[in-house]
Amino acid sequence: MTGTLYGVGVGPGDPELLTLKAVRVLREAPVVAYPAPLEGDSMARAIAAAHILKSKTEVAIRLPFTPGRADTEQRYDRAAEELSGHLAAGRDVALLCLGDPLLYGTFAHVMARLAGRFEISVVPGVTSLSAASAAAALPLAAGEESVAVVPATLDEESMAARISAADCVAVVKLGRHLAKLRRVLDRLGLAGRAQYVEFAATGAERVRPLAEVSEADSAYFAVVVLRKRDFP
Amino acid sequence: MTGTLYGVGVGPGDPELLTLKAVRVLREAPVVAYPAPLEGDSMARAIAAAHILKSKTEVAIRLPFTPGRADTEQRYDRAAEELSGHLAAGRDVALLCLGDPLLYGTFAHVMARLAGRFEISVVPGVTSLSAASAAAALPLAAGEESVAVVPATLDEESMAARISAADCVAVVKLGRHLAKLRRVLDRLGLAGRAQYVEFAATGAERVRPLAEVSEADSAYFAVVVLRKRDFP
Repeated sequence: MTGTLYGVGVGPGDPELLTLKAVRVLREAPVVAYPAPLEGDSMARAIAAAHILKSKTEVAIRLPFTPGRADTEQRYDRAAEELSGHLAAGRDVALLCLGDPLLYGTFAHVMARLAGRFEISVVPGVTSLSAASAAAALPLAAGEESVAVVPATLDEESMAARISAADCVAVVKLGRHLAKLRRVLDRLGLAGRAQYVEFAATGAERVRPLAEVSEADSAYFAVVVLRKRDFP
Repeated sequence: MTGTLYGVGVGPGDPELLTLKAVRVLREAPVVAYPAPLEGDSMARAIAAAHILKSKTEVAIRLPFTPGRADTEQRYDRAAEELSGHLAAGRDVALLCLGDPLLYGTFAHVMARLAGRFEISVVPGVTSLSAASAAAALPLAAGEESVAVVPATLDEESMAARISAADCVAVVKLGRHLAKLRRVLDRLGLAGRAQYVEFAATGAERVRPLAEVSEADSAYFAVVVLRKRDFP
């Protein structure tokens, strides 16, 4: 019997936003893996730390912070190979992911490499979008409204087209793209409606109108949420 | 001291997908409220049932299944009034919601009526979108992809515009709108890429290509997920 690869969403930051299922899978699986920066600690591991017993085999999947780096694919290959050793030996693996495993997660890349060879099971998690809309007390959609989830890494034209076509918007992967996002929202006449939420669902959570945020003062882990119409 | 109104997401269906925070808030609040149909049981209550002690005061907010009915606003008014009595008397209220409280939830309507008068706190939950993408093992977004969340209740033109402008799509509120959705996806050349997920994260969960689903055989609680490009 081979093991099962679990993609386990640990939620947006608050350890209390783990699901009961995430906690159970984490306690039952003998191997716990997680994405981590090239140096330093894994955020996903830190969120779930209270539920990781000392007896576990831990695997850190070290990935560069900058997307698109040439060696990232090789790092996923090596991670999948290491995890496949545990799975082939019959050991279940819980791969932790910030938020939800299939929304901008590392998990999809590992899953794609191991699907067909091993049993895969995804434990969905609370997303940073839900955490940001909760922090801002802003309904992300109601009634017949649609939502666009848009990465700020896109070019201005692509971002504008995606934002134009929706009733409510969540902008993710803000990183150093705040000035670009502000230009796009200004052009669309939406800048005044945007709420900037940094470190949602953590002790450092802070909500401000986007208009009051300066580039120097912006955080990497932030989400911008907006509604084109007032609610209700 | 007045009480706090908690919007508590109970997730998409599996009682194990409640968060630790949802369980704690539910145990601590003396009043537990939930949306329910005009007759019969509340799904949100059923999902959280194991954590609702007999000592709680329970408030069912009975709402018609058909959106837009004239008396719905009055029903929200009456529900807010009933809950405000508990809050004014210092009793915390946990208002349960399927999925996440601020994504197509009843909670936003009650919150809008009580904001400013009472403390509001939102406990985000796992959405049916995450549950559907987990069931289909389909990454809902990766890298620079955007997502559109689109209600099937929209007219064909609006649906097509929103779906066209995104890289990945989740269609919610499918209800009796399957034939319309199929026409829209056929027109956009996307019907072959759509996965139909019914009763995600419940014992009745079932995933099929949309092409294999007949109108007669479709469920009210279903989500259609699709990616325009293969992953990776």
